[in-house]
This record gives sequence, C-alpha cells and structure tokens, in this order.
Amino acid sequence: MHVASAIVPKVRELLRVEPDGLQAFLDEIHNEDIADLLGLLSDEEAMQLLERIGADAAADIFERLEDHEREHLVERFGAVRLAPIVSEMDPDEATDLIEGLPDVIGDELLGRMAPDAAAEVRPLLEWPEDTAGGLMTTQLVSASPDTSAAELIELIRARSDEVEMISYVYAVDGGRMVGVASLRDVIVSQGQTRLREFMSTDVRSVLPGTDQEEVARVLSKYDVTALPVVDEEHRLLGVITVDDVIDVIAKEQTEDIQRLAGVGPIDDRYFDATFWTFLAKRAPWLAVLFVGEFFAGQAMRNFDYVLASVSSLAFYVPLLISTGGNTGSQSASLIIRGLATGEIAVGDWRAVLRRELSQGLALGVLLASLGMARVWLWGDPLAMVATVGVTLICIVLLGCTIGAMFPLILRKVGLDPATSSTPFIATVIDVVGILIYFSIAKVFLASLISKSAHP
Amino acid sequence: MHVASAIVPKVRELLRVEPDGLQAFLDEIHNEDIADLLGLLSDEEAMQLLERIGADAAADIFERLEDHEREHLVERFGAVRLAPIVSEMDPDEATDLIEGLPDVIGDELLGRMAPDAAAEVRPLLEWPEDTAGGLMTTQLVSASPDTSAAELIELIRARSDEVEMISYVYAVDGGRMVGVASLRDVIVSQGQTRLREFMSTDVRSVLPGTDQEEVARVLSKYDVTALPVVDEEHRLLGVITVDDVIDVIAKEQTEDIQRLAGVGPIDDRYFDATFWTFLAKRAPWLAVLFVGEFFAGQAMRNFDYVLASVSSLAFYVPLLISTGGNTGSQSASLIIRGLATGEIAVGDWRAVLRRELSQGLALGVLLASLGMARVWLWGDPLAMVATVGVTLICIVLLGCTIGAMFPLILRKVGLDPATSSTPFIATVIDVVGILIYFSIAKVFLASLISKSAHP
Repeated sequence: MHVASAIVPKVRELLRVEPDGLQAFLDEIHNEDIADLLGLLSDEEAMQLLERIGADAAADIFERLEDHEREHLVERFGAVRLAPIVSEMDPDEATDLIEGLPDVIGDELLGRMAPDAAAEVRPLLEWPEDTAGGLMTTQLVSASPDTSAAELIELIRARSDEVEMISYVYAVDGGRMVGVASLRDVIVSQGQTRLREFMSTDVRSVLPGTDQEEVARVLSKYDVTALPVVDEEHRLLGVITVDDVIDVIAKEQTEDIQRLAGVGPIDDRYFDATFWTFLAKRAPWLAVLFVGEFFAGQAMRNFDYVLASVSSLAFYVPLLISTGGNTGSQSASLIIRGLATGEIAVGDWRAVLRRELSQGLALGVLLASLGMARVWLWGDPLAMVATVGVTLICIVLLGCTIGAMFPLILRKVGLDPATSSTPFIATVIDVVGILIYFSIAKVFLASLISKSAHP
Repeated sequence: MHVASAIVPKVRELLRVEPDGLQAFLDEIHNEDIADLLGLLSDEEAMQLLERIGADAAADIFERLEDHEREHLVERFGAVRLAPIVSEMDPDEATDLIEGLPDVIGDELLGRMAPDAAAEVRPLLEWPEDTAGGLMTTQLVSASPDTSAAELIELIRARSDEVEMISYVYAVDGGRMVGVASLRDVIVSQGQTRLREFMSTDVRSVLPGTDQEEVARVLSKYDVTALPVVDEEHRLLGVITVDDVIDVIAKEQTEDIQRLAGVGPIDDRYFDATFWTFLAKRAPWLAVLFVGEFFAGQAMRNFDYVLASVSSLAFYVPLLISTGGNTGSQSASLIIRGLATGEIAVGDWRAVLRRELSQGLALGVLLASLGMARVWLWGDPLAMVATVGVTLICIVLLGCTIGAMFPLILRKVGLDPATSSTPFIATVIDVVGILIYFSIAKVFLASLISKSAHP
C-alpha cells in the first residue's frame, strides 16, 4: 500500500491540472499498485483515471481490483461507460465480474461489450464459478501437431495481443487435444521440428465440471503453471492458469478456517464486510450451538439428585467437557486437513478409527493420571478420584472417535467436512460427556448419594 | 494413485525378468505417477528402478517424493549410490534434501556430488528452509540489457539442459538486476530488438531473508510465476518458482489449521506419522489446556457456598462456558486469517476492537434472549433468568474481545498468531466466565443463598 498512498497527491493533482500527463506518470507504476491506488481515490477520480489511461491498461487494473470494488464501479457508472474496459478483460475475469453483478446490469453489460469479447464470455457463464469451467479462460494458443517450431513462434507472435498469459502451446488433432509443449520447448526446438516431435502426450487435464479444489490439487501435484480443460470427447475448451488457482487456494483456506470455527464463509475482506454481514455469518451457528448446549443442561438436570448430594461433582464439569472438546478438535482438524490434501479418503475410516482409538487411549490415560492427582490433592474422596479418572478416559476416547468420524461422515454424504465441525463436535461431546460423568458418579459414589433425594 | 497401483505388477515383472525394457515402459508414464509408484515398491525395488532409468529422470522423480521417503532412501542406500541422482536435482530441491538429513550423511552426500552441482547447493544451504533464500534456485537465465532477442533465444537454448523451469529472463547490468522479460516477450520481439527495449523495469523482488509466507503473498498479489531474490545491493541471487510457493502455501495452511486446534505442526502425511509422533504433537497442548482448566474448577470451588444453596446454577455452566469459547473461536479465526492474508495489521487493533465489541453486544443480546427464555421455561426463578441473561452478554463480549486481541498480541510479540489460539482462548474464557457467572449469581440470588453456608 505504501506505493499507492505515496502517489495519491500527485495523481490527484494530475487529474485536476494536467490529465494528459497522467498516462506517462502511471507508466512507471505497477498495475497492481494502481489498483491499490483506486481504492484511495473517490469513485469519480477512479473512473476518470480508468478512462484516461486507455481501455487495455484499465482492463488489466480492473482485473486486479477486489470483486466488490469493481462491481461497485459498474453499478455506479453504468454499462455504457464500463463496457469498453470490460471488453478488454480476460474472458474468465469478465465472466466473474458479470456473475457477481445483479442480473439486469450483468445482461446489459454483456450486451454493450464488443461482440467478439461477449462471444468469448457467453460460454463461460454456463459454468458455476467454483468449477474448472468457471475458472478457465478461452484465450490460449493451439495448433496442429504438424506445425513446425518456427510456425509456432509466428503463431504466438500473431496471437500475443489477445492471449494474456502464454506458457504452453496445445496440440489439437481432429478436434481432440493430443499434446502440450511449453514455450521453452518451442524455443529450444530447431525451426523445422514439428510440434508432435517435441510435445508431451501425457497431459493432465480436467473436465469443466471439476470442483476448483480438485483443480488446485492436480495443478500443484503435477507442478504445471496451466491446466487444460477438455470435454468428455477430449475437445479443448479452455485453460486454467496458476494465478487463478492460487487465488482459489487462498479463498478455500479462508473458508475452511472460518467454517472450522463456526463462521459462515465471508466473501469480503475483514474491514470491507459490514456489521450486518458479520452478524449474519456468526449468529446462526452460535444460536444452533447454543441450543445444542441446552441438552447439556438437561443432561445435568436429570442427575439433579446426584448433584444435590455431592455438589463438588460440579467443580469437574468444565475440566471434563473442555478436555473432550479439545481432543475432538485435534482429531477433527487432522482428518479435515487430511481429506483436503487427499492424504485420507472416506474408505480409510477403519485405519483412521484404529489410529484414533489408540491415540485416545494413550492420551486418556495420561490426562486421567494428571486429573486424578489433582482431585486427590484437592482432598476429595477416593471414589471421586476414580470417577474423574474413568470419565476422563471415556471422554478422551469419545473425543477422538467423534472428532475423527464426523468429518468422514460429512464428506461421505457430500458436505464440506470443515462445516462447523469443531464447535459442533465439542457440543456433542459436552452432552454425551456429562451423561457419562454422572452415570459413572452414580455408581462410584452410590454410598454418598442420599436415599431421600433419589427419585 | 490408480495409475501407480495399476502398473505395480508390470513394473515388478520387468525388474525381475527384463530390466532393460523398464525405461521404455516408464517413458509413457508421468514422473509424478512413477513417484507414487515408488511408495508401493520395496526399498530395493525402488532403488533398482531409479538406477535403471538414468540419473536425469531419477532426479526428477526424486524431487516429487515426500521428504521422508527420499531421506529414507539416502539413509538406506548411502551417499555413494545416491550422489549421481542428487547431482542432477534442482539445486533448491537438493538443498532441501540435504537439510533434512542427519548432518553426517548430508555432508557425505554433498562431498560425493558432482563438483559443479555441489557448488550450486553450498550457498543455498546458508539460508533457513522457510525463507526466500531457502526456497530459491540458482538456475536461471540472465543477460545484459543490450542482448538482442535473437541472442536471448540462443542463450535459452544453450542453458535449457541445466535450467529446469524457464519463464523469465532477467536483465543484469553492472551486477545489479535491472529488468525482467517473459519468454513470451522474447518470442514476440523482433530478432534485433534489445532486451532493454522490451523488458519491464518494475520488477518485484524479495530479499533472501524474507519469510516464505511473505514470498507467497507477493507472488500471488502480483500474479507472476517466478520471483527473483536479490541482496541489498540488488544483485540477483536466485529465483523462486510458483510450484515451490504452492507447496509452501499448502504446508502453511496445514500448520495453521493444526495449530488452531492445538496440535503441533506434523511434517508427515497422516498415515506416515507414527503413533509416537502424533502423541508428542497432541499430548503437550492437551496437558497445558487441562491444567488451565484446573483454574476453572478452582474458581467454582471458591463459590461452593453459592452452589450448595442453589445447585441448579451448575446446570448452566456448560451452556455459558461453551458459548464463550465458541464466540472466542469465531473472532480468533477471523483475525488470524486476516493477519495471514495481510488484510489486518497489528496497528489496526483499535478498529478491530470497536468492531468486535459491537458484534459482541449484538450477539450477546441475541443469545441472552434465547437463554433467558429457556431458563424461564425450565421454571427457574426470575433472579436466575436475570443471572443467566447478564452473564451471557458479559461472556460473549469477553469472547469477542479476547478472541480478537490475543492473536494480535501474539503477532506483536513475534509469535505465530495461529499457535493454539482457539483452545487457549476457550480455556481463558472458561475460567473468567465462571468467575463472572458466580459473582453475578451471588448478587442476584443473594436471598436464596443460605446464611449458614456463607463463609
């Protein structure tokens, strides 16, 4: 942000006094920094700047704005003024922009765009935003496998105005994609060598309906900087570039971490989201978990005669339920992350269960020893020491089991395993843990429970 | 994994019966799949395969193995047999491998490597693994800004055997890096055009000591596929490629999610880590949190005379403390994620606090209404209804405040904000929440607390 804020006064002055000098001044600034700069100007100044520097540069800057910033400019200044800029955007970026706008404005914008640009965007609008089809761009370089390296260089030159990011050339034969060569391969090959001689035929590709998380996995596993999208007949539909995938990874990561803590996914940046957005994303989960905890209260209420006789039982409730929750969170986060990276599959549930049960037993024995020592030091009777110890082993085993199995079940039924798993799991463990604790106490402390209080 | 497991029998047969046919067979398989395959073979079979297919292909496969797999092979078969393969690896990958080995074996391996390969690795060993210097490779293409496009193409051809990934050519003048051009720029420029005419002079670069998270942020912000590393005098030291950065992002994400749940970072994949590794990463945090919860028990014990008079107070303890913990987790995860993506800085603490206090008040009032309705429906006295309501508002405000401020404080003192924040925060809220609850109860329920029990 330093670059952007440092040049604000100069840019304001140029806009006011000498707008023709603006382009020359901004030529020296990285477009990413100009995008940051727009956020510091008024809407009018930003729009004026975009119109001054030419549609091509404006389109590149537009691609670097936050979704809500560019949508705001379109809604503010209308399709007529923005269409020239949007026509110069990468088709995949223009698609994202149009999908984020209210339908009426999006349709108008599409209608006012240059016909060839609109024609490139239309097929992309068919695919959901979070699939390979929604991420891909149709701007790519493809050629027959019989094209020579020298001809490919001519082709790349001819197409370089439209195609923004060229890392690979795809070989297409009879409509089917049959190979890929990197720009480096093209340069290194001697002029008359044909593409089929130096292309690689083992090309990873994805279908347009492939989920964006799977796209990110394939791209990072095979260390490529672009991934072709093909249909069932292996016809080349588009290409996904690594920069878009990095954005996806960051967004999915934010969503996972928020879901894990019981916050609905928030699209905006922290300071951009409104008070009401936050409330809407936080309150429902909190309320559901809150109502869940009513059952914990109900469970205790069912044992009120036990609690009335041995009120010190209550002192261990926070310790027991929080330990169950912490253990469950650990297991859940390990499994959720393993599912996300593909290390763990739903079919591995038996192996996961075995591992978590052995962990649970070891952790349970360890914490039970600590806990029993503390109860004994507090001077509670030996029956209480035993109650807390046995309960801890049960609760830790329960935490590991529920924590590990719940994400696998969510994935199995087709939901995101990160969906509020850890607080949900903690709530379940709270309720079950309290039932276990008081049931054990009722047996171990039978002699202390007054007959009269018994129902 | 399907590809790899499908070819295991065929590969085993070839190794046994016709090892000379192995290379031709594996030529058709992607190296990433061959890397998967190695994990399914015995150590001896894997080593035999690597030696059969030539050092160059073996090095590429070696780069795709998990850290512990390749370290295991070196430790098993020794520096003499592995040095030819490691000599062909990318210097940054060879450096990672050597850093992961016990010092004696790493030094021996370095000593037995081809002298020019070892010379490239040595300077890289100076930088910690998680910095730009630890991520960079020294294999790159650089040229004087006066080089013509045609000469650059010759240069790229000449260097393409050594330099694995070429996306950019860097212009170096008088020892300083002064510009960058993409391969596409080189191809598109006419043969006699000089580099200085088509290069971009606004090059993002990082210092070798820059943290890898910052590297990932710069690379994804500026949408480049490689980032140069320069020293204070702007001398070009190396280049970081996007594939390495994607691996960093995935690893940091795993660590963040594990830290958030109170699990020490685990380097291995879920099924590769041993029982004892898991225990060592989980037990310490659980034990610390467990001891922390002793204070929750102690807090309740201090109010035993209150609890003895009104035992139904205990029924609301799970509800109150879990609500505080859930609210705290929400705030903490929002702030931790905002810090990670750079949306929030430590200096923003006042704005964060204002936002979280207003959220806390709104969420607190909402949950207090729900809670008071439930207490009233359970037939508890009005004083109890008021106690639960006021406590809920206080606890939710507390959760938002501690949850938001604790990660900022950790960052401020130079620690990772994700370090076990959410369970730690929940534990603090448990203890403080119980003190608040019973203090309020003591006032509101004064008439119900028997004088005799009062200390």
